[in-house]
Amino acid sequence: MSVIYNRVALIGLGLIASSMFWAIKRAGLAAEVTGYARSPETRDTARRIGLCDRVCDSAADAVDGADLVVLCVPVGAMGAVAQDIAPALKPGCTVTDVGSVKRAVIDAVGPHLPQGVHFVPAHPLAGTEHSGPESGFATLFDNRWCLLVPMPDGDPAATDRLRHLWEGMGANVDEMDADHHDLVLAVTSHAPHLIAYTMVGVADDLGRVTDNEVIKYSASGFRDFTRIAASDPTMWRDVFLTNKDATLEILGRFTEELFTLQRAIRTGDGDMLHAYFTRTRAIRRGILEAGQDTSAPDFGRVVKPD
Amino acid sequence: MSVIYNRVALIGLGLIASSMFWAIKRAGLAAEVTGYARSPETRDTARRIGLCDRVCDSAADAVDGADLVVLCVPVGAMGAVAQDIAPALKPGCTVTDVGSVKRAVIDAVGPHLPQGVHFVPAHPLAGTEHSGPESGFATLFDNRWCLLVPMPDGDPAATDRLRHLWEGMGANVDEMDADHHDLVLAVTSHAPHLIAYTMVGVADDLGRVTDNEVIKYSASGFRDFTRIAASDPTMWRDVFLTNKDATLEILGRFTEELFTLQRAIRTGDGDMLHAYFTRTRAIRRGILEAGQDTSAPDFGRVVKPD
Repeated sequence: MSVIYNRVALIGLGLIASSMFWAIKRAGLAAEVTGYARSPETRDTARRIGLCDRVCDSAADAVDGADLVVLCVPVGAMGAVAQDIAPALKPGCTVTDVGSVKRAVIDAVGPHLPQGVHFVPAHPLAGTEHSGPESGFATLFDNRWCLLVPMPDGDPAATDRLRHLWEGMGANVDEMDADHHDLVLAVTSHAPHLIAYTMVGVADDLGRVTDNEVIKYSASGFRDFTRIAASDPTMWRDVFLTNKDATLEILGRFTEELFTLQRAIRTGDGDMLHAYFTRTRAIRRGILEAGQDTSAPDFGRVVKPD
Repeated sequence: MSVIYNRVALIGLGLIASSMFWAIKRAGLAAEVTGYARSPETRDTARRIGLCDRVCDSAADAVDGADLVVLCVPVGAMGAVAQDIAPALKPGCTVTDVGSVKRAVIDAVGPHLPQGVHFVPAHPLAGTEHSGPESGFATLFDNRWCLLVPMPDGDPAATDRLRHLWEGMGANVDEMDADHHDLVLAVTSHAPHLIAYTMVGVADDLGRVTDNEVIKYSASGFRDFTRIAASDPTMWRDVFLTNKDATLEILGRFTEELFTLQRAIRTGDGDMLHAYFTRTRAIRRGILEAGQDTSAPDFGRVVKPD
């Protein structure tokens, strides 16, 4: 694999940025990767574990001379960071991001970027419930999707170059427009996360079942929910606040459907329940066949090498 | 490990029964294990793969002379099976089950059992999304909980013996009463399963996002839901129909809580969302500390040896 960008700057050093660094190094996709994080503790940790070739004490220093700048901060912080780095951006460079919501990022970041800088929003569909600079690993993006959301008036060459970077990090790449992205993600990720958070909260609230019992006897259903509900609170707060309309629409549909199933339980309509559960099982099979998961017990999740 | 029951009969040969067979064999807990399944195809498969020392063509034959009879059929079928085997049960034997609901099983099975037969309902909290005679494996119960629900007027010695069997199969054993069991499971398993089924159904219904997109871009949240929603339809239909009250109560609490979070999203109350998500993350940590899960990517699920 050859160098795609001479210098890459990672702004924010959490799970995604640290995984990008290790994936870039694995394939030799950049000559130098600089990094910046707002918290001095995170910068210290990054220096200690060798995360980034150079950790800078300001975002402006990190992006200075960079050919690609990747915004890896929570969606709600993207606008402020863009404003901060804008004067230091190299003419002709590309700015991208890894946020889970695209319309809000475009609205927040776009206006700050100077003429001559390419903006190619992106969203890698990969993650774990861990966060922070020590949580990343080189294989996180292998065989996962990364969605690029090019601006309608953007330069196709800048998009192609970013596509090669993501492919070099192991991802499959697709393109879609921002609003469709936000709806698809509301269905496949944002609403499921809110639902998992809710169910975990309900279990905790219930007076007649102790936390200890919930924890001890957490059967597979609840265990999977708690994993989802352990994801980074700041990231998810921002996702729900910035993808509000699509998330609320999906939750409305969800509630409607849940009421139908509750009524079937209440009235003892076993045929309806059986037909419904048979259909959802078929959907799972479709996911297996599409290769986005495996039937193996670790569900194709990649293991961080020690 | 020494023999705990001379002869064990498994009625129904799905995931749990087949895992019990391999776990019993692994530790030498029974001299002979017989098996019966209603479907001739299942019996043929069991014979082909060596599941059970002897596969019988009737439930009465399978339980003849057995010291322990384990009902491993869906909760809704337990009563009919108990009626069928009752005349063939050996005096002094123990009947148990592995159903996910306990009050309904006690009501359905108890009246059929003759005097002098011990009834000790049980529920191993272990499973995968796979079903059928070929889905079992010896390590399914290792370090998982099995809940025993002894009858108030039952023989403590029969309960102790069953406890030793489950411990011999690798499980940790606790006891609780039937109604409390059903409430705890409604929280930790039944309601989460219904919610997962619902979300997968909503995704499928949504016209503006294609099934193909949902499948391709199923991020971690939705992937975990589809795994849950792929569980056996008959088993889960029966669970919801027989644990109706507790499940509907938990779903009511869930809906109330979900509406609160939806309102926080709609009104942009980021502080409320952040505090909520921080609390659910702490609950997850409690589960890890209680040893019911691991932080490893396979979440402690056991791998079936090839």
